[in-house]
Amino acid sequence: MLKIFSFRSLAITTHFADRLFLASQNKAPVCVGIDPVFEKMPAKLRDQTDPNCAAEVIALFEEFTINVLQAAANHAACVKFQSACFERYHHLGVDLLQRMLKLANEMGLITINDAKRGDIGISAAHYGAGCLGRTHYSDLGTHPGADSLTCNAYLGEDSLQPLLDVAAKEGKGLFALVRTSNPGGDTIQNLVLAEGHTVCQAVATMIAELGEQSIGDCGYSHLGAVVGATQPDQAVNLRVLMPRQIFLVPGFGAQGGGPEDVKACFNDDHFGAIITASRSVIYAYQTDPNKNWAQAIDDAAEDLSQQIQSILKG
Amino acid sequence: MLKIFSFRSLAITTHFADRLFLASQNKAPVCVGIDPVFEKMPAKLRDQTDPNCAAEVIALFEEFTINVLQAAANHAACVKFQSACFERYHHLGVDLLQRMLKLANEMGLITINDAKRGDIGISAAHYGAGCLGRTHYSDLGTHPGADSLTCNAYLGEDSLQPLLDVAAKEGKGLFALVRTSNPGGDTIQNLVLAEGHTVCQAVATMIAELGEQSIGDCGYSHLGAVVGATQPDQAVNLRVLMPRQIFLVPGFGAQGGGPEDVKACFNDDHFGAIITASRSVIYAYQTDPNKNWAQAIDDAAEDLSQQIQSILKG
Repeated sequence: MLKIFSFRSLAITTHFADRLFLASQNKAPVCVGIDPVFEKMPAKLRDQTDPNCAAEVIALFEEFTINVLQAAANHAACVKFQSACFERYHHLGVDLLQRMLKLANEMGLITINDAKRGDIGISAAHYGAGCLGRTHYSDLGTHPGADSLTCNAYLGEDSLQPLLDVAAKEGKGLFALVRTSNPGGDTIQNLVLAEGHTVCQAVATMIAELGEQSIGDCGYSHLGAVVGATQPDQAVNLRVLMPRQIFLVPGFGAQGGGPEDVKACFNDDHFGAIITASRSVIYAYQTDPNKNWAQAIDDAAEDLSQQIQSILKG
Repeated sequence: MLKIFSFRSLAITTHFADRLFLASQNKAPVCVGIDPVFEKMPAKLRDQTDPNCAAEVIALFEEFTINVLQAAANHAACVKFQSACFERYHHLGVDLLQRMLKLANEMGLITINDAKRGDIGISAAHYGAGCLGRTHYSDLGTHPGADSLTCNAYLGEDSLQPLLDVAAKEGKGLFALVRTSNPGGDTIQNLVLAEGHTVCQAVATMIAELGEQSIGDCGYSHLGAVVGATQPDQAVNLRVLMPRQIFLVPGFGAQGGGPEDVKACFNDDHFGAIITASRSVIYAYQTDPNKNWAQAIDDAAEDLSQQIQSILKG
């Protein structure tokens, strides 16, 4: 009986949606996207670095990322790592990503590995174990993995199930790509089906059904959805189809989404969405070269947080 | 074994499709899939390995993979690495994958990184550089990267363009997921559109158009398609929609596709498809425990090659 009781009480705090709900209340429902690119690094760091030496670039990325994490810890519920930026530097980049995921957790941040994985069967299970699961090896030590992972749903529900199993077991989450904000996103996602819905609406329906497997006390699922913030009508419609999905909303700031686009993604509880901004925060020093670069990032993260909070109040 | 070296010049062989065409003529249009999983490794290797030490598992995978590459080099045009199996072991696995891609090239094999990547804008460019492109760093040395990469087309044509740019520049290729062989593949891919086609047929049309950017002398594009081998009617239809795409066809053997399913994927030139088998080849020793494990893999690769050649002749 004691075991059941502790499991239940533990489950209340460990469900991914509940953790994200709490963090959003404590700070703001915003996410800082970490997409380090050598050419865009602060000149002071870049000038000391040989771009042809991967270890030097990775050391630069580490110093940069630690500062971004500090800014995010001050103002945001979570951080999203763009896996491609790290994978580009092969094993050195992958090692840094794992270490930064761990550090972000230690700084109180919820992490998203924006790796957009999607595979079937045992391969999906491997992605679940490698990208999302906690790992312990005698030589590598313990790594928490990411708290959540972005994933591609084109391969169908059985491609997501192995990831959902890891997520449910470890109090972690997924964000399935439903509607993306790039110009070419329309080509497949906006095709109209014979039954009247669009393709992305069919994906949304599949995600809503799959997400019923695990709903937190806050009313949201461990399976969320990536929904671009550039078309408010579509966001309203997808909100109806996916009432229990937390929307991860890129496209605010640099990609062009504005306040009304963002508001459409939230529910009446002022939750149900996490607004993510990458370039407009982490490269904020580019528009204000006189400011200390780390301070510029912190200011931009604070500004993002305040903008979203005032949109929600308005 | 059939060995026909054709008249084609060096310049011609640098297009990915032409390289694959030649390799398929020299050996057979088959691919050995390398999906190493600790629990399935030969008992002799596994018993010497501590599964809790990542470096020991990776050393085991290296010995295993080298033997698989030798078998593939004897009988197959190419090898396909399941990235998830390597990524599971974090930076150690990613490092091994890079080294094995290089070794496979040195053994005369064309490589496919089955990583199913898909992202937009600069992130897609990073995947192109990191997964597909040649790299040189003063500390990491030169790596050829993969000759080709599997990718997900749900995000639309602009998500594929940065990958296509790398492929065109470096004589490499892509295989976009069109129709997968898993049971849940139907859920999105087989939905019927208002205009009459299915979603995967719309993806196929997009892929065929994009692939026109770069056609080799053999008549095929650097942009191929993943088409599961379990529904011959669909394969025939997709062949019509994508006449210039090389089909990467999983599902032969372990996943249930048979000769007729496979035949439907080829064109009259006996090319246009690469049949890939993973478990039925690399774990062949499981069904014949008295045979030396490396010999069992070689025999299974030879058997696969002969089966496909006789299907093409029949």
